[in-house]
Amino acid sequence: METFVIFGDFFDCDPERQLRIRKQKYCLVEDGKIRTIADVNPAPEKKLYDCSGKIIIPGLIDLHMHAPQYGFRGLGMDMELLQWLDTYTFPEEAKYSDKEYAQKQYAIFADHLKKSWTSRAVIFGTIYTDTTLLLMELLEKSGLITYVGKVNMDRNSKDYYMEDTEESLRETERYIEEAKKFTRTFPIITPRFIPSCSDELMKGLGEIQDRTMLPIQSHLSENRSEIEWVKELMPESSSYGDAYDRYGLFGKQDRTIMAHCVSSTKSELDLIQYSGVYVAHCPSSNMNLSSGIAPVKKMLKKGIKVGLGTDVAAGESLSMAHEMIRAVQASKIRWRYVDSRETPISMTDAFYMATRTGGEFFGKVGCFEEGYEFDAVVVDDSTASTYIDLNDEKRLERMFYLAHECVLTDKFVLGNKVL
Amino acid sequence: METFVIFGDFFDCDPERQLRIRKQKYCLVEDGKIRTIADVNPAPEKKLYDCSGKIIIPGLIDLHMHAPQYGFRGLGMDMELLQWLDTYTFPEEAKYSDKEYAQKQYAIFADHLKKSWTSRAVIFGTIYTDTTLLLMELLEKSGLITYVGKVNMDRNSKDYYMEDTEESLRETERYIEEAKKFTRTFPIITPRFIPSCSDELMKGLGEIQDRTMLPIQSHLSENRSEIEWVKELMPESSSYGDAYDRYGLFGKQDRTIMAHCVSSTKSELDLIQYSGVYVAHCPSSNMNLSSGIAPVKKMLKKGIKVGLGTDVAAGESLSMAHEMIRAVQASKIRWRYVDSRETPISMTDAFYMATRTGGEFFGKVGCFEEGYEFDAVVVDDSTASTYIDLNDEKRLERMFYLAHECVLTDKFVLGNKVL
Repeated sequence: METFVIFGDFFDCDPERQLRIRKQKYCLVEDGKIRTIADVNPAPEKKLYDCSGKIIIPGLIDLHMHAPQYGFRGLGMDMELLQWLDTYTFPEEAKYSDKEYAQKQYAIFADHLKKSWTSRAVIFGTIYTDTTLLLMELLEKSGLITYVGKVNMDRNSKDYYMEDTEESLRETERYIEEAKKFTRTFPIITPRFIPSCSDELMKGLGEIQDRTMLPIQSHLSENRSEIEWVKELMPESSSYGDAYDRYGLFGKQDRTIMAHCVSSTKSELDLIQYSGVYVAHCPSSNMNLSSGIAPVKKMLKKGIKVGLGTDVAAGESLSMAHEMIRAVQASKIRWRYVDSRETPISMTDAFYMATRTGGEFFGKVGCFEEGYEFDAVVVDDSTASTYIDLNDEKRLERMFYLAHECVLTDKFVLGNKVL
Repeated sequence: METFVIFGDFFDCDPERQLRIRKQKYCLVEDGKIRTIADVNPAPEKKLYDCSGKIIIPGLIDLHMHAPQYGFRGLGMDMELLQWLDTYTFPEEAKYSDKEYAQKQYAIFADHLKKSWTSRAVIFGTIYTDTTLLLMELLEKSGLITYVGKVNMDRNSKDYYMEDTEESLRETERYIEEAKKFTRTFPIITPRFIPSCSDELMKGLGEIQDRTMLPIQSHLSENRSEIEWVKELMPESSSYGDAYDRYGLFGKQDRTIMAHCVSSTKSELDLIQYSGVYVAHCPSSNMNLSSGIAPVKKMLKKGIKVGLGTDVAAGESLSMAHEMIRAVQASKIRWRYVDSRETPISMTDAFYMATRTGGEFFGKVGCFEEGYEFDAVVVDDSTASTYIDLNDEKRLERMFYLAHECVLTDKFVLGNKVL
């Protein structure tokens, strides 16, 4: 692994969720980690990346997306969740039993993700082990660091896209075993959501998790009809979250991501907080499928770990900058119409969610501090031409709003230059 | 003016707000107008634009934007309207007293607008006549068709950005007079909003309008504090809309655009409908400044003419495709949280608003029908790669959602090729 120095203006968040701007600094990266950030070049003999005039931010971290849905992003936005799954999602995901189809679609996904501002992501595949491993291979080659889940579903889907329980568990074991060959692409236990997973399957996944200590990802309290359905399916559970928790699939000692949490009750939020579950807030998706707006400010105040997810393809774009803007906008609307005590989140809040919170899931990553893994994207914002005098904070805000007018010039993941 | 034939797949809306798709047609354009749309080339001797494989839609029409704010798009999104005006807008607009500054900023604006999917727009300038005329000159050269308003403000602004009443009226007359030299760039009476305009100024503008029969643009019921303020300023008015109406600046025989109408009361909506006022719905802006979400579905049901506006720079982008998506998303959230009787608008509704409704303001434009002026943008959507089979309707929806991944290949305004 190359040791190098990168020079320029570093923008990140401090642990107190405040914006931190350090200009004209030299950052020494060794073994993929930040060794020091200094005013004077600490290793003039090493390779120097001079990023003067640009903006250096931590690589953005996407906590929730569905790779096999990428092909139909921007389609079918006239439905709510359950109808959308039956009409668009399941028929499309079923095509990924075919290796050739998976290869060409996943290649586009991996290529676009590589060229995005995202350095790490937590991703749903499909129920198919082989093509999920294929996706992992493509992501491994991309240089990004990801978790990729083989999805489990043994009930309430279409015949053509469902497993039996035994098979689902057996294939999960196989996928975990085969994924050991990857060095930056990791398995994650992925029950699709409660309606798709029988009690027996959940029990089996709980046991696999117990044995492997792998992290977990799923969906929680996204849509009202879905929540009602879960109540019917799991009458003994005190909440939707509890339906995962009773099988040991809801945080505590191990890392769990629950996407959405739009309509979580107070007791569910308490459980999320107590269990240390990461919430993947997906505002674009929640607007597109008419799900609503998650109470992010309330969650942050409670100390819940809220990250961001694009939720491609219910979210139409894999741009995390786009998702940060949507998060700020959505919180304003929630404040206006849903709860006047929940003041809007700031751009810095969104930046923190997209870097430090997502980063915590991956370990020590998401900011520029000694000992942290070095993920960074370097952005040339001069292409978003203006003659306005900008202070540094405004310049950063503007860069996120006008991300598609800016140019990504370099991208580092764990100290490797991937672009 | 060139006579030509354009061949390809035409997507527009019919008068009943239904999507209309006509594939592999020949459209004959003569004197800027559509002469016929046929299965067989009606004029093989004329120039042929072959747009096979692409999507041809009417040029999009932006009913509300502020040219002098373009330089600070994506900035200052942490405030509500009145504070935002004082902090960002008025200081920036004041810089446009300087010709050199105006020249370089407006040149970027006109260039970006020209390269966008927008063929016509209704635009605010500043209080300065000379640089507003300069903006008009740049837009005239762009080939787009626009209305550009010299803004009137004689109270409640900062000293450095305010006119006295006499001066404001006199300069308005001068601007109208000088604008006669343009052929595709037109003046429009532009009282900023009630808080900025004294009764005397409004009276004078009403008289100018009466004499010139020019159209009118302003802002209405955008933000709660603003609405309260108007009530204090105009206690004798029955509504904010009535405060314009009493000076003859609210539709009826002449065309008026009122931007926002987020919080219009029932009686104000009645007045809007009765007066034939165009509402410029600006969902991005209304999210960014925490204003809320206008009741678009209710307006459409009432027969109100609702078009779309990007409201740059409270809206962060001058992309009308972006604004269409935002309109659909916002309506879903309004349905979810504000009024369950207002079902979400469809993409076709948004397409209609961005083409036919906006077009009606400009005359006979906004669709592909005989006798209509020919504004069109031709989009190559093959760059938004997918292997999904798309029917035509889905292909169009996807094109709008993924607009920034598609390529604008040709643009026509009134039968002139401007790109």
